[in-house]
Amino acid sequence: MISKNKLKFIKSLQIKKYRLLEQCFLVEGAKSVLEVMNSDFEIETLLLSNDFLSEHEHKVKTCKAELIEVNENDLIAAGSFHSNRDALAVVKMKPNSPIVIKSDEFAIALDDIRDPGNLGTIIRIADWYGIDKIIASHESADYYNPKVITASMGSFTRVQVFYTDLSAFITQSEVPVFGAFMDGEDVHQFNFGAGGILLVGNEAHGISAQLEKVVTKKINIPRYGKAESLNAAVATAVICDNLRRRA
Amino acid sequence: MISKNKLKFIKSLQIKKYRLLEQCFLVEGAKSVLEVMNSDFEIETLLLSNDFLSEHEHKVKTCKAELIEVNENDLIAAGSFHSNRDALAVVKMKPNSPIVIKSDEFAIALDDIRDPGNLGTIIRIADWYGIDKIIASHESADYYNPKVITASMGSFTRVQVFYTDLSAFITQSEVPVFGAFMDGEDVHQFNFGAGGILLVGNEAHGISAQLEKVVTKKINIPRYGKAESLNAAVATAVICDNLRRRA
Repeated sequence: MISKNKLKFIKSLQIKKYRLLEQCFLVEGAKSVLEVMNSDFEIETLLLSNDFLSEHEHKVKTCKAELIEVNENDLIAAGSFHSNRDALAVVKMKPNSPIVIKSDEFAIALDDIRDPGNLGTIIRIADWYGIDKIIASHESADYYNPKVITASMGSFTRVQVFYTDLSAFITQSEVPVFGAFMDGEDVHQFNFGAGGILLVGNEAHGISAQLEKVVTKKINIPRYGKAESLNAAVATAVICDNLRRRA
Repeated sequence: MISKNKLKFIKSLQIKKYRLLEQCFLVEGAKSVLEVMNSDFEIETLLLSNDFLSEHEHKVKTCKAELIEVNENDLIAAGSFHSNRDALAVVKMKPNSPIVIKSDEFAIALDDIRDPGNLGTIIRIADWYGIDKIIASHESADYYNPKVITASMGSFTRVQVFYTDLSAFITQSEVPVFGAFMDGEDVHQFNFGAGGILLVGNEAHGISAQLEKVVTKKINIPRYGKAESLNAAVATAVICDNLRRRA
Protein backbone atom coordinates (compact mmCIF):
# COMPACT_ATOMS: atom_id res chain seq x y z
CA MET A 1 0.00 0.00 0.00
CA ILE A 2 1.37 3.38 -0.99
CA SER A 3 0.26 6.77 0.35
CA LYS A 4 -1.05 9.52 -1.91
CA ASN A 5 1.79 11.78 -0.79
CA LYS A 6 4.40 9.21 -1.71
CA LEU A 7 2.81 8.73 -5.13
CA LYS A 8 2.79 12.49 -5.64
CA PHE A 9 6.44 12.75 -4.59
CA ILE A 10 7.50 10.00 -7.01
CA LYS A 11 5.48 11.45 -9.86
CA SER A 12 7.15 14.86 -9.31
CA LEU A 13 10.52 13.29 -10.24
CA GLN A 14 9.44 13.32 -13.87
CA ILE A 15 10.20 17.06 -13.72
CA LYS A 16 13.82 18.21 -13.70
CA LYS A 17 13.28 20.89 -11.05
CA TYR A 18 12.09 18.29 -8.54
CA ARG A 19 14.82 15.82 -9.49
CA LEU A 20 17.42 18.47 -8.73
CA LEU A 21 15.70 19.40 -5.48
CA GLU A 22 15.38 15.80 -4.30
CA GLN A 23 18.56 14.50 -5.99
CA CYS A 24 16.57 11.44 -7.09
CA PHE A 25 15.34 10.04 -10.40
CA LEU A 26 12.98 7.35 -11.69
CA VAL A 27 13.82 3.97 -13.18
CA GLU A 28 10.84 2.07 -14.62
CA GLY A 29 10.12 -1.39 -15.97
CA ALA A 30 11.57 -4.81 -15.15
CA LYS A 31 14.67 -4.62 -17.40
CA SER A 32 15.86 -1.20 -16.19
CA VAL A 33 15.02 -1.84 -12.52
CA LEU A 34 16.95 -5.13 -12.57
CA GLU A 35 19.92 -3.35 -14.18
CA VAL A 36 19.90 -0.61 -11.52
CA MET A 37 19.68 -3.26 -8.77
CA ASN A 38 22.86 -4.79 -10.24
CA SER A 39 24.68 -1.45 -10.32
CA ASP A 40 26.35 0.79 -7.74
CA PHE A 41 23.41 3.24 -7.83
CA GLU A 42 21.66 3.63 -4.47
CA ILE A 43 17.95 2.80 -4.62
CA GLU A 44 15.82 4.73 -2.11
CA THR A 45 12.41 3.25 -2.78
CA LEU A 46 11.34 0.25 -4.82
CA LEU A 47 7.71 -0.09 -5.87
CA LEU A 48 7.04 -3.58 -7.07
CA SER A 49 4.20 -5.83 -8.10
CA ASN A 50 3.58 -9.17 -6.48
CA ASP A 51 4.60 -10.88 -9.75
CA PHE A 52 7.93 -9.02 -9.89
CA LEU A 53 8.56 -9.87 -6.23
CA SER A 54 7.86 -13.56 -6.79
CA GLU A 55 10.06 -13.75 -9.86
CA HIS A 56 13.01 -11.86 -8.37
CA GLU A 57 12.59 -12.56 -4.65
CA HIS A 58 16.23 -13.35 -3.94
CA LYS A 59 17.45 -10.23 -5.74
CA VAL A 60 14.81 -8.03 -4.07
CA LYS A 61 15.78 -9.29 -0.60
CA THR A 62 19.37 -8.11 -1.05
CA CYS A 63 18.13 -4.61 -1.97
CA LYS A 64 18.45 -2.09 0.85
CA ALA A 65 15.68 0.17 -0.48
CA GLU A 66 12.32 0.80 1.14
CA LEU A 67 10.10 -1.85 -0.51
CA ILE A 68 6.48 -1.10 -1.27
CA GLU A 69 4.27 -3.71 -2.90
CA VAL A 70 1.81 -2.04 -5.25
CA ASN A 71 -0.61 -2.90 -8.04
CA GLU A 72 -0.30 -2.02 -11.71
CA ASN A 73 -2.44 1.10 -11.33
CA ASP A 74 -0.07 2.51 -8.71
CA LEU A 75 2.96 1.77 -10.90
CA ILE A 76 1.34 3.67 -13.76
CA ALA A 77 0.20 6.51 -11.48
CA ALA A 78 3.70 6.91 -9.99
CA GLY A 79 5.66 6.77 -13.24
CA SER A 80 5.71 7.86 -16.85
CA PHE A 81 4.84 4.52 -18.50
CA HIS A 82 1.45 3.73 -20.03
CA SER A 83 1.80 0.20 -18.75
CA ASN A 84 4.07 -1.27 -16.09
CA ARG A 85 3.29 -4.54 -14.32
CA ASP A 86 6.69 -4.92 -12.74
CA ALA A 87 8.57 -2.28 -10.82
CA LEU A 88 9.66 1.33 -10.41
CA ALA A 89 12.71 2.50 -8.47
CA VAL A 90 13.46 5.89 -6.94
CA VAL A 91 17.24 6.17 -7.26
CA LYS A 92 19.80 8.62 -5.85
CA MET A 93 21.49 10.84 -8.44
CA LYS A 94 25.28 10.71 -8.62
CA PRO A 95 27.49 13.82 -8.54
CA ASN A 96 28.45 15.33 -11.93
CA SER A 97 32.02 14.01 -11.69
CA PRO A 98 34.65 15.21 -14.17
CA ILE A 99 35.81 12.74 -16.81
CA VAL A 100 39.40 12.25 -17.89
CA ILE A 101 39.98 10.69 -21.31
CA LYS A 102 43.07 8.58 -21.68
CA SER A 103 44.92 8.55 -24.98
CA ASP A 104 44.02 4.91 -25.69
CA GLU A 105 40.29 5.13 -25.18
CA PHE A 106 37.30 6.51 -27.06
CA ALA A 107 34.69 8.87 -25.61
CA ILE A 108 31.62 10.56 -27.08
CA ALA A 109 30.95 14.30 -26.80
CA LEU A 110 27.44 15.68 -27.32
CA ASP A 111 27.06 19.19 -28.74
CA ASP A 112 23.47 19.93 -27.65
CA ILE A 113 21.66 16.65 -28.19
CA ARG A 114 18.23 17.92 -27.15
CA ASP A 115 16.00 14.89 -27.62
CA PRO A 116 15.89 12.60 -24.56
CA GLY A 117 15.19 9.57 -26.77
CA ASN A 118 18.33 10.31 -28.79
CA LEU A 119 20.46 10.72 -25.64
CA GLY A 120 19.18 7.43 -24.22
CA THR A 121 19.79 5.66 -27.53
CA ILE A 122 23.34 7.09 -27.72
CA ILE A 123 24.06 5.84 -24.17
CA ARG A 124 22.90 2.36 -25.27
CA ILE A 125 25.07 2.54 -28.42
CA ALA A 126 28.10 3.68 -26.38
CA ASP A 127 27.58 0.73 -24.04
CA TRP A 128 27.29 -1.71 -26.99
CA TYR A 129 30.54 -0.40 -28.47
CA GLY A 130 32.44 -0.42 -25.16
CA ILE A 131 32.52 3.34 -24.65
CA ASP A 132 31.73 4.32 -21.06
CA LYS A 133 32.41 8.05 -21.06
CA ILE A 134 30.14 10.73 -22.53
CA ILE A 135 30.77 14.46 -22.21
CA ALA A 136 27.68 16.60 -22.80
CA SER A 137 27.14 20.33 -23.24
CA HIS A 138 24.94 21.94 -20.59
CA GLU A 139 22.21 22.38 -23.23
CA SER A 140 21.99 18.64 -23.90
CA ALA A 141 19.03 16.60 -22.62
CA ASP A 142 19.10 15.62 -18.95
CA TYR A 143 20.59 12.19 -18.32
CA TYR A 144 18.05 11.66 -15.48
CA ASN A 145 14.99 12.36 -17.65
CA PRO A 146 12.77 9.22 -17.52
CA LYS A 147 12.80 9.05 -21.34
CA VAL A 148 16.62 8.97 -21.36
CA ILE A 149 16.73 6.27 -18.70
CA THR A 150 14.12 4.19 -20.55
CA ALA A 151 15.70 4.55 -24.02
CA SER A 152 19.11 3.57 -22.60
CA MET A 153 17.68 0.10 -21.74
CA GLY A 154 19.80 -0.18 -18.60
CA SER A 155 23.00 1.11 -20.20
CA PHE A 156 22.81 4.27 -18.05
CA THR A 157 24.23 2.14 -15.24
CA ARG A 158 27.45 1.53 -17.19
CA VAL A 159 28.02 4.81 -19.07
CA GLN A 160 28.96 8.01 -17.24
CA VAL A 161 27.68 11.32 -18.61
CA PHE A 162 29.56 14.45 -17.52
CA TYR A 163 27.93 17.83 -18.20
CA THR A 164 30.35 20.67 -18.78
CA ASP A 165 31.38 23.58 -21.01
CA LEU A 166 32.09 21.34 -24.01
CA SER A 167 34.22 23.82 -25.92
CA ALA A 168 36.53 24.42 -22.93
CA PHE A 169 36.68 20.68 -22.20
CA ILE A 170 37.64 19.71 -25.74
CA THR A 171 40.11 22.58 -26.12
CA GLN A 172 41.94 21.41 -23.00
CA SER A 173 41.92 17.74 -23.98
CA GLU A 174 44.89 16.43 -25.94
CA VAL A 175 43.28 13.52 -27.78
CA PRO A 176 42.10 13.61 -31.43
CA VAL A 177 38.57 14.94 -31.98
CA PHE A 178 36.47 13.30 -34.72
CA GLY A 179 33.42 15.04 -36.17
CA ALA A 180 31.13 14.15 -39.08
CA PHE A 181 31.01 16.66 -41.96
CA MET A 182 29.92 16.40 -45.60
CA ASP A 183 33.51 17.07 -46.74
CA GLY A 184 35.11 14.68 -44.23
CA GLU A 185 37.13 11.58 -44.95
CA ASP A 186 35.14 8.38 -45.75
CA VAL A 187 34.69 6.42 -42.48
CA HIS A 188 35.03 3.21 -44.47
CA GLN A 189 38.64 4.17 -45.24
CA PHE A 190 39.48 6.14 -42.12
CA ASN A 191 41.90 5.00 -39.41
CA PHE A 192 40.62 6.15 -36.00
CA GLY A 193 43.79 5.11 -34.18
CA ALA A 194 43.82 4.09 -30.53
CA GLY A 195 41.52 6.70 -29.03
CA GLY A 196 39.87 10.10 -29.12
CA ILE A 197 36.63 11.98 -28.81
CA LEU A 198 33.74 11.41 -31.22
CA LEU A 199 31.86 14.73 -31.35
CA VAL A 200 28.14 14.41 -32.15
CA GLY A 201 26.27 17.51 -33.35
CA ASN A 202 22.83 18.84 -32.52
CA GLU A 203 19.83 17.16 -34.24
CA ALA A 204 18.92 20.21 -36.33
CA HIS A 205 22.12 22.23 -36.66
CA GLY A 206 24.90 19.66 -36.51
CA ILE A 207 28.24 20.59 -34.94
CA SER A 208 28.34 24.29 -33.98
CA ALA A 209 30.80 26.67 -35.66
CA GLN A 210 32.60 27.13 -32.35
CA LEU A 211 33.17 23.41 -31.90
CA GLU A 212 34.00 22.78 -35.56
CA LYS A 213 37.25 24.68 -34.83
CA VAL A 214 38.38 22.05 -32.32
CA VAL A 215 37.64 19.06 -34.58
CA THR A 216 41.00 17.62 -35.59
CA LYS A 217 39.73 14.94 -38.01
CA LYS A 218 36.70 15.45 -40.23
CA ILE A 219 34.96 12.23 -41.19
CA ASN A 220 31.98 11.39 -43.37
CA ILE A 221 29.52 8.50 -43.57
CA PRO A 222 29.17 7.67 -47.27
CA ARG A 223 25.69 8.06 -48.67
CA TYR A 224 24.32 5.73 -51.35
CA GLY A 225 20.82 7.23 -51.70
CA LYS A 226 19.05 10.55 -51.34
CA ALA A 227 18.27 11.25 -47.66
CA GLU A 228 19.83 14.56 -46.59
CA SER A 229 21.14 13.24 -43.30
CA LEU A 230 20.95 10.47 -40.73
CA ASN A 231 19.45 10.81 -37.23
CA ALA A 232 22.14 11.80 -34.68
CA ALA A 233 21.98 8.52 -32.75
CA VAL A 234 21.99 6.45 -35.95
CA ALA A 235 25.07 8.31 -37.26
CA THR A 236 26.80 7.77 -33.90
CA ALA A 237 26.21 4.02 -34.16
CA VAL A 238 27.51 3.81 -37.72
CA ILE A 239 30.67 5.74 -36.77
CA CYS A 240 31.23 3.60 -33.64
CA ASP A 241 30.88 0.45 -35.76
CA ASN A 242 33.57 1.74 -38.11
CA LEU A 243 35.76 2.89 -35.24
CA ARG A 244 35.73 -0.54 -33.57
CA ARG A 245 35.99 -2.76 -36.62
CA ARG A 246 39.27 -4.52 -37.15
CA ALA A 247 38.56 -6.07 -40.53
CA MET B 1 -8.80 31.81 -43.14
CA ILE B 2 -9.74 28.20 -42.39
CA SER B 3 -13.12 26.91 -41.25
CA LYS B 4 -13.60 25.00 -38.01
CA ASN B 5 -14.91 22.03 -39.97
CA LYS B 6 -11.83 21.94 -42.17
CA LEU B 7 -9.57 22.11 -39.11
CA LYS B 8 -11.52 19.28 -37.53
CA PHE B 9 -11.28 17.19 -40.71
CA ILE B 10 -7.52 17.69 -40.94
CA LYS B 11 -6.98 16.92 -37.28
CA SER B 12 -8.95 13.67 -37.67
CA LEU B 13 -6.26 12.40 -40.07
CA GLN B 14 -3.98 11.81 -37.08
CA ILE B 15 -6.15 8.75 -36.46
CA LYS B 16 -5.72 5.69 -38.69
CA LYS B 17 -9.46 5.02 -38.99
CA TYR B 18 -10.06 8.44 -40.54
CA ARG B 19 -6.98 8.21 -42.76
CA LEU B 20 -8.35 4.96 -44.20
CA LEU B 21 -11.81 6.47 -44.61
CA GLU B 22 -10.54 9.62 -46.34
CA GLN B 23 -7.52 8.01 -48.04
CA CYS B 24 -5.48 11.05 -46.98
CA PHE B 25 -2.60 11.69 -44.54
CA LEU B 26 -0.77 14.62 -42.97
CA VAL B 27 2.65 16.01 -43.82
CA GLU B 28 3.91 18.71 -41.45
CA GLY B 29 6.79 21.17 -41.28
CA ALA B 30 8.77 22.99 -43.97
CA LYS B 31 11.24 20.21 -44.79
CA SER B 32 8.65 17.43 -45.22
CA VAL B 33 6.12 19.64 -47.05
CA LEU B 34 8.79 20.78 -49.53
CA GLU B 35 9.80 17.15 -50.09
CA VAL B 36 6.20 16.09 -50.76
CA MET B 37 5.77 19.04 -53.16
CA ASN B 38 8.79 17.70 -55.07
CA SER B 39 7.38 14.17 -55.22
CA ASP B 40 4.66 12.42 -57.21
CA PHE B 41 2.29 12.44 -54.23
CA GLU B 42 -0.92 14.37 -54.85
CA ILE B 43 -1.49 17.19 -52.37
CA GLU B 44 -5.16 17.96 -51.71
CA THR B 45 -4.85 20.90 -49.34
CA LEU B 46 -1.89 23.00 -48.32
CA LEU B 47 -2.09 25.12 -45.19
CA LEU B 48 0.74 27.60 -45.15
CA SER B 49 1.96 30.63 -43.24
CA ASN B 50 2.66 33.94 -44.90
CA ASP B 51 6.39 33.40 -44.23
CA PHE B 52 6.40 30.01 -45.94
CA LEU B 53 4.48 31.44 -48.88
CA SER B 54 6.93 34.35 -49.29
CA GLU B 55 9.95 32.07 -49.08
CA HIS B 56 8.66 29.41 -51.49
CA GLU B 57 6.26 31.42 -53.65
CA HIS B 58 7.40 29.99 -56.97
CA LYS B 59 7.18 26.41 -55.71
CA VAL B 60 3.78 27.02 -54.09
CA LYS B 61 2.34 28.49 -57.30
CA THR B 62 3.09 25.28 -59.21
CA CYS B 63 1.20 23.26 -56.59
CA LYS B 64 -2.28 22.20 -57.68
CA ALA B 65 -3.60 21.85 -54.12
CA GLU B 66 -6.22 24.03 -52.46
CA LEU B 67 -4.08 26.70 -50.75
CA ILE B 68 -5.15 28.16 -47.41
CA GLU B 69 -3.07 30.82 -45.72
CA VAL B 70 -3.18 30.35 -41.96
CA ASN B 71 -1.40 31.51 -38.82
CA GLU B 72 0.80 29.45 -36.52
CA ASN B 73 -2.07 28.68 -34.15
CA ASP B 74 -4.07 27.10 -36.96
CA LEU B 75 -1.07 25.03 -38.09
CA ILE B 76 -0.70 23.71 -34.55
CA ALA B 77 -4.46 23.15 -34.15
CA ALA B 78 -4.66 21.21 -37.43
CA GLY B 79 -1.61 19.02 -36.95
CA SER B 80 0.35 16.99 -34.42
CA PHE B 81 3.33 19.35 -33.93
CA HIS B 82 3.85 21.48 -30.82
CA SER B 83 5.19 24.22 -33.05
CA ASN B 84 4.89 24.77 -36.79
CA ARG B 85 5.38 28.17 -38.40
CA ASP B 86 5.54 26.87 -41.94
CA ALA B 87 3.13 24.48 -43.55
CA LEU B 88 0.96 21.39 -43.39
CA ALA B 89 -0.20 19.33 -46.36
CA VAL B 90 -3.14 16.97 -46.69
CA VAL B 91 -1.89 14.33 -49.11
CA LYS B 92 -3.60 11.48 -51.00
CA MET B 93 -2.56 8.00 -49.90
CA LYS B 94 -1.15 5.69 -52.57
CA PRO B 95 -2.42 2.14 -53.15
CA ASN B 96 -0.60 -0.66 -51.30
CA SER B 97 1.18 -1.85 -54.47
CA PRO B 98 3.06 -5.14 -54.46
CA ILE B 99 6.84 -4.99 -54.52
CA VAL B 100 9.06 -7.23 -56.62
CA ILE B 101 12.66 -7.62 -55.51
CA LYS B 102 15.22 -8.13 -58.22
CA SER B 103 18.21 -10.37 -57.57
CA ASP B 104 20.67 -7.46 -57.74
CA GLU B 105 18.99 -5.13 -55.28
CA PHE B 106 18.54 -4.92 -51.53
CA ALA B 107 15.23 -4.50 -49.72
CA ILE B 108 14.29 -4.31 -46.04
CA ALA B 109 11.55 -6.47 -44.48
CA LEU B 110 9.97 -5.46 -41.16
CA ASP B 111 8.72 -8.19 -38.84
CA ASP B 112 6.34 -6.16 -36.65
CA ILE B 113 8.18 -2.87 -36.14
CA ARG B 114 5.58 -1.33 -33.86
CA ASP B 115 7.06 2.05 -32.98
CA PRO B 116 6.22 4.77 -35.55
CA GLY B 117 9.46 6.62 -34.72
CA ASN B 118 11.45 3.48 -35.51
CA LEU B 119 9.61 2.94 -38.81
CA GLY B 120 10.20 6.55 -39.87
CA THR B 121 13.87 6.32 -38.91
CA ILE B 122 14.25 3.04 -40.86
CA ILE B 123 12.68 4.69 -43.96
CA ARG B 124 15.25 7.51 -43.63
CA ILE B 125 18.09 4.99 -43.22
CA ALA B 126 16.89 3.00 -46.25
CA ASP B 127 16.86 6.20 -48.31
CA TRP B 128 20.39 7.12 -47.12
CA TYR B 129 21.68 3.70 -48.13
CA GLY B 130 19.92 3.66 -51.50
CA ILE B 131 17.25 1.09 -50.61
CA ASP B 132 13.81 2.10 -51.88
CA LYS B 133 11.73 -1.00 -51.10
CA ILE B 134 10.43 -1.99 -47.67
CA ILE B 135 8.08 -4.92 -47.06
CA ALA B 136 6.23 -4.75 -43.75
CA SER B 137 4.07 -7.22 -41.84
CA HIS B 138 0.47 -6.12 -41.30
CA GLU B 139 1.24 -5.64 -37.59
CA SER B 140 3.96 -3.06 -38.29
CA ALA B 141 3.36 0.63 -37.61
CA ASP B 142 1.34 2.52 -40.23
CA TYR B 143 3.45 4.26 -42.84
CA TYR B 144 0.93 7.15 -42.90
CA ASN B 145 1.10 7.81 -39.13
CA PRO B 146 2.23 11.46 -38.68
CA LYS B 147 5.11 10.27 -36.45
CA VAL B 148 6.38 7.98 -39.23
CA ILE B 149 6.15 10.74 -41.83
CA THR B 150 7.95 13.20 -39.53
CA ALA B 151 10.72 10.81 -38.45
CA SER B 152 11.40 9.88 -42.08
CA MET B 153 12.43 13.53 -42.75
CA GLY B 154 11.01 13.48 -46.27
CA SER B 155 12.40 10.06 -47.18
CA PHE B 156 8.84 8.64 -47.27
CA THR B 157 8.58 10.23 -50.73
CA ARG B 158 11.38 8.02 -52.06
CA VAL B 159 10.89 4.70 -50.24
CA GLN B 160 7.90 2.44 -50.94
CA VAL B 161 6.45 0.43 -48.07
CA PHE B 162 4.34 -2.58 -49.02
CA TYR B 163 2.23 -4.23 -46.29
CA THR B 164 1.66 -7.95 -46.73
CA ASP B 165 1.82 -11.38 -45.14
CA LEU B 166 5.57 -11.25 -44.60
CA SER B 167 6.09 -14.95 -44.14
CA ALA B 168 4.31 -15.81 -47.41
CA PHE B 169 6.13 -12.99 -49.23
CA ILE B 170 9.58 -14.09 -48.10
CA THR B 171 8.87 -17.77 -48.68
CA GLN B 172 7.92 -17.03 -52.30
CA SER B 173 10.88 -14.75 -52.92
CA GLU B 174 14.05 -16.29 -54.33
CA VAL B 175 16.66 -13.83 -53.04
CA PRO B 176 18.85 -14.41 -49.94
CA VAL B 177 17.31 -13.35 -46.61
CA PHE B 178 19.64 -11.81 -44.01
CA GLY B 179 18.65 -11.66 -40.33
CA ALA B 180 20.58 -10.61 -37.22
CA PHE B 181 21.08 -13.28 -34.56
CA MET B 182 23.52 -13.66 -31.66
CA ASP B 183 25.06 -16.73 -33.32
CA GLY B 184 25.22 -15.17 -36.79
CA GLU B 185 28.30 -14.43 -38.88
CA ASP B 186 30.21 -11.21 -38.04
CA VAL B 187 28.91 -8.44 -40.36
CA HIS B 188 32.43 -7.03 -40.48
CA GLN B 189 33.54 -10.20 -42.31
CA PHE B 190 30.34 -11.05 -44.12
CA ASN B 191 29.85 -10.83 -47.90
CA PHE B 192 26.28 -9.71 -48.64
CA GLY B 193 26.62 -10.30 -52.37
CA ALA B 194 24.60 -8.37 -54.94
CA GLY B 195 21.20 -8.30 -53.30
CA GLY B 196 18.65 -9.75 -50.91
CA ILE B 197 16.22 -8.98 -48.12
CA LEU B 198 17.40 -7.62 -44.78
CA LEU B 199 14.86 -8.85 -42.24
CA VAL B 200 14.46 -6.61 -39.17
CA GLY B 201 12.83 -8.07 -36.06
CA ASN B 202 10.33 -6.63 -33.62
CA GLU B 203 11.67 -4.18 -30.99
CA ALA B 204 10.98 -6.48 -28.04
CA HIS B 205 11.01 -10.00 -29.47
CA GLY B 206 13.37 -9.81 -32.44
CA ILE B 207 12.71 -12.00 -35.47
CA SER B 208 9.78 -14.38 -34.87
CA ALA B 209 10.32 -18.15 -34.82
CA GLN B 210 8.20 -18.48 -37.96
CA LEU B 211 10.34 -16.03 -39.91
CA GLU B 212 13.63 -17.33 -38.50
CA LYS B 213 12.98 -20.43 -40.63
CA VAL B 214 13.14 -18.43 -43.87
CA VAL B 215 16.36 -16.60 -42.98
CA THR B 216 19.04 -18.00 -45.28
CA LYS B 217 22.03 -16.10 -43.81
CA LYS B 218 22.36 -15.34 -40.11
CA ILE B 219 24.49 -12.31 -39.36
CA ASN B 220 25.63 -10.60 -36.17
CA ILE B 221 26.77 -7.10 -35.26
CA PRO B 222 29.84 -7.55 -33.06
CA ARG B 223 29.50 -6.14 -29.56
CA TYR B 224 32.44 -4.55 -27.74
CA GLY B 225 30.68 -3.60 -24.48
CA LYS B 226 27.80 -4.74 -22.31
CA ALA B 227 24.48 -3.52 -23.75
CA GLU B 228 22.17 -6.47 -24.39
CA SER B 229 21.02 -5.23 -27.78
CA LEU B 230 20.79 -2.27 -30.14
CA ASN B 231 17.60 -0.41 -31.05
CA ALA B 232 15.99 -1.92 -34.20
CA ALA B 233 16.56 1.17 -36.36
CA VAL B 234 20.16 1.56 -35.14
CA ALA B 235 20.92 -2.09 -35.93
CA THR B 236 19.38 -1.65 -39.40
CA ALA B 237 21.69 1.30 -40.09
CA VAL B 238 24.80 -0.55 -38.95
CA ILE B 239 23.93 -3.54 -41.14
CA CYS B 240 23.17 -1.31 -44.15
CA ASP B 241 26.51 0.43 -43.70
CA ASN B 242 28.27 -2.93 -43.77
CA LEU B 243 26.18 -4.15 -46.69
CA ARG B 244 27.10 -1.14 -48.84
CA ARG B 245 30.77 -0.72 -47.93
CA ARG B 246 33.29 -1.67 -50.56
CA ALA B 247 36.46 -1.27 -48.50
